Amino acid sequence: MNDEKMVNAITSMDEDFAKWYTDIVKKADLCDYSSVRGCMILRPYGYAIWELIQQDLDRRFKETGHENVYMPMFIPESLLQKEKDHVEGFAPEVAWVTHGGSEKLQERICVRPTSETLFCDHYKNIVQSYRDLPKLYNQWCSVCRWEKTTRPFLRTLEFLWQEGHTAHATAEEAEEETVRMMNVYADFLKEFLAIPVVKGRKTEKEKFAGAMATYTLESLMHDGKALQAGTSHNFGDGFAKAFGIQYTDKNNKLQYVHQTSWGMTTRLIGALIMVHSDNNGLVLPPKAAPVQTIIIPVMQRKAGVLEKAEEIRERLSKVCRVKADGSDKSPGWKYAEQEMKGIPLRLEIGPRDIEKNQCVIVCRLGRVKQIVSLDDIEKVVPELLEKMQNDLYEKALAHKEAHTFDASNMEEFDKQLKENPGFINAMWCGDEECENKIKELTGATSRCMPFEQKHISDNCVCCGKPAKVMVSWGKAY
Amino acid sequence: MNDEKMVNAITSMDEDFAKWYTDIVKKADLCDYSSVRGCMILRPYGYAIWELIQQDLDRRFKETGHENVYMPMFIPESLLQKEKDHVEGFAPEVAWVTHGGSEKLQERICVRPTSETLFCDHYKNIVQSYRDLPKLYNQWCSVCRWEKTTRPFLRTLEFLWQEGHTAHATAEEAEEETVRMMNVYADFLKEFLAIPVVKGRKTEKEKFAGAMATYTLESLMHDGKALQAGTSHNFGDGFAKAFGIQYTDKNNKLQYVHQTSWGMTTRLIGALIMVHSDNNGLVLPPKAAPVQTIIIPVMQRKAGVLEKAEEIRERLSKVCRVKADGSDKSPGWKYAEQEMKGIPLRLEIGPRDIEKNQCVIVCRLGRVKQIVSLDDIEKVVPELLEKMQNDLYEKALAHKEAHTFDASNMEEFDKQLKENPGFINAMWCGDEECENKIKELTGATSRCMPFEQKHISDNCVCCGKPAKVMVSWGKAY
Repeated sequence: MNDEKMVNAITSMDEDFAKWYTDIVKKADLCDYSSVRGCMILRPYGYAIWELIQQDLDRRFKETGHENVYMPMFIPESLLQKEKDHVEGFAPEVAWVTHGGSEKLQERICVRPTSETLFCDHYKNIVQSYRDLPKLYNQWCSVCRWEKTTRPFLRTLEFLWQEGHTAHATAEEAEEETVRMMNVYADFLKEFLAIPVVKGRKTEKEKFAGAMATYTLESLMHDGKALQAGTSHNFGDGFAKAFGIQYTDKNNKLQYVHQTSWGMTTRLIGALIMVHSDNNGLVLPPKAAPVQTIIIPVMQRKAGVLEKAEEIRERLSKVCRVKADGSDKSPGWKYAEQEMKGIPLRLEIGPRDIEKNQCVIVCRLGRVKQIVSLDDIEKVVPELLEKMQNDLYEKALAHKEAHTFDASNMEEFDKQLKENPGFINAMWCGDEECENKIKELTGATSRCMPFEQKHISDNCVCCGKPAKVMVSWGKAY
Repeated sequence: MNDEKMVNAITSMDEDFAKWYTDIVKKADLCDYSSVRGCMILRPYGYAIWELIQQDLDRRFKETGHENVYMPMFIPESLLQKEKDHVEGFAPEVAWVTHGGSEKLQERICVRPTSETLFCDHYKNIVQSYRDLPKLYNQWCSVCRWEKTTRPFLRTLEFLWQEGHTAHATAEEAEEETVRMMNVYADFLKEFLAIPVVKGRKTEKEKFAGAMATYTLESLMHDGKALQAGTSHNFGDGFAKAFGIQYTDKNNKLQYVHQTSWGMTTRLIGALIMVHSDNNGLVLPPKAAPVQTIIIPVMQRKAGVLEKAEEIRERLSKVCRVKADGSDKSPGWKYAEQEMKGIPLRLEIGPRDIEKNQCVIVCRLGRVKQIVSLDDIEKVVPELLEKMQNDLYEKALAHKEAHTFDASNMEEFDKQLKENPGFINAMWCGDEECENKIKELTGATSRCMPFEQKHISDNCVCCGKPAKVMVSWGKAY
């Protein structure tokens, strides 16, 4: 494959956003399709990004007192049915196991779409006294939802995720935990993935099946569509009552526990693509980049070039994740590959650079090029990585702000969404009928009721009745 | 719960080994039963051990050039059937998904029992040229085998594992990889889990379904039964031919790839229990211990005791995984818990110790007690942990050697296995009939043909015909 072919192979995002997205997914070797409908293969490069995400999130979970566990991947039908809203939400989209080997099962079991029911079943056994609370558990696993149409990372039959499940003595503690984890997610998105979000509460219609309240983090993609990056649910004592999870309090009285759950998935990799990447390929925030610096030797057959590249690699390995590419491919091909794979920095080193004790460093963001003395690389490279991490966040924040609009009537609402899509802030009466009607008219759904409220008008943007709350609306993935 | 109750609750291993095992599993909070037949819940303490195992193995895999990927959890029936021996081996024990939501699937899919077929399907797509080889992939996931009878960690319907899958240009490279990974496993078992093994090759009867050769690591439990701790398979080009995985070599000729696979599972935690633990509970090699040192304050209500415990914890956190238990439980209860959970060291600190600037350190292995100056703890604690790690290995090695016997006739064989079970080394003619007959007569199976061969007698221990090889036999988990 020559340089041209690799670069030309990406569709421009202005021409066809969906095709641009799948081109990057394939060309950056993030994932591949499998023989199983709707299931994807996470290739080494894609999985390495997921491993970095896992490490950072896992550290944040452990720092806030959570422990990892592992629950079965199967849920008996009777267990799934214990909480009414929950089963209604999930039963239509589960995979059913009916046979083990050649035997038909007495009761069919589903592959977990989420594990509330399993955690509840376990909590019922291990929680007896107030001394056993809180239980702050998390698990890393895959889940399965039988979707009709699928897209890599964004919507697949099976996906990888983490699901936190906690049980608390009081409603207050459960609410605190729900908010705490929403903020852990928001910090992670900002600091690690460089993705700004709108924090808010889901409406009744959009909340999780079985939850009392769902808090969400909504991010904005290049094309003006929203993507739910993570959610944190407060269950109150609903599941506890359905499953009979009770503890004896300090006064020896039986009480129900209060529960939460929260999750993030591999769809974050989809968000990374659609928030940061460009027409040359993937752009990765340095913290989420499996390789942060690639060293590309120029005229590598000349004496000393490969040795110098290796010496630089060795030195930089102490300050970042670095690789040197001494393969037979041409420098041009290697440059194109660095851009396609979103490697934050490339360091070019050739005979003339060596003579001058310098190298050329090109940043993936804006292809900014600079000449750096070889004496300074251990200092400059981390600085450039940090700068790129911050710049990406600022860029994404500016994009989100430039695509957030107020609308005080449906005409403005609809026009804005058609001409320059993004988040539309508009007042709402609280009635689900208006929510449905707005979706019907514009295709936008209520993303959340932002915690940062603003008074845009007195009346509901849809029906004109007195408004209760500002909602952030948008078309969503 | 008082001290007595916790300690008395374990059955002695001499009285009932199986009960002793499950008592430890439950009382050390490693796992719990679930509502799903044969599936277990890995509780925080059990899962933390698995995380340490994962980290160490993963590092070894990456150091030997392997990359992690993630394949779908489902396999379409037609894909499973592509390699004849493989499907015969696994089809009887898979879980079949027949419905997605309310719709019946056109083709049923099984939950992966192992992923050779998925990797082959992927390799077929991504391997074209010799430049694409080798592919050195690994995945961490759960798999499902529909077992009739199950035991925590040892045999469960679902279990966690890693499965390495590699593709190579030549038969020699595949053989090298198979041996390399067997040795990576052996080093890990020795250095990290302190478990000695017999390395060898499985007989035709015992090898993996679809493999040309299976290498195995056989460990010996307290009760003289063997446990297969890991296996490494050489597939030759059998799967490549069944799936059509071909590449163009340097001479532009089409060639089939040569493949391997290798795996280790959560059953290693079962091995940890049955190799190291005792009648007071779990014993963990320090490297696999989530908490390596527990600090137990004595007379903790006296001024300064809790503060000193916290100061020591802070200091020791730089050299080991440490916790301080300042809870209301009595010191006796805390000592019993440390023993039950197999925490390698406990450090007792009370008012008198503080006066003398010392503490008491008790090692889980042999309950060896020593007084240590508080000035020296950062030096002594790591030394004690290292000593315990080594002592555990030596102890297990001595047990394995004391329970490995030679037999030159079936009378000796049978008598030994009845009186003092362990590995029985005996000569074999290579005939599967003898293998079956030995199992019928004694209950022992061929564990492996050890690489370290010895000449015990000229003739097969069973039929008396000329012997080809020494086999290590034993009853197995």
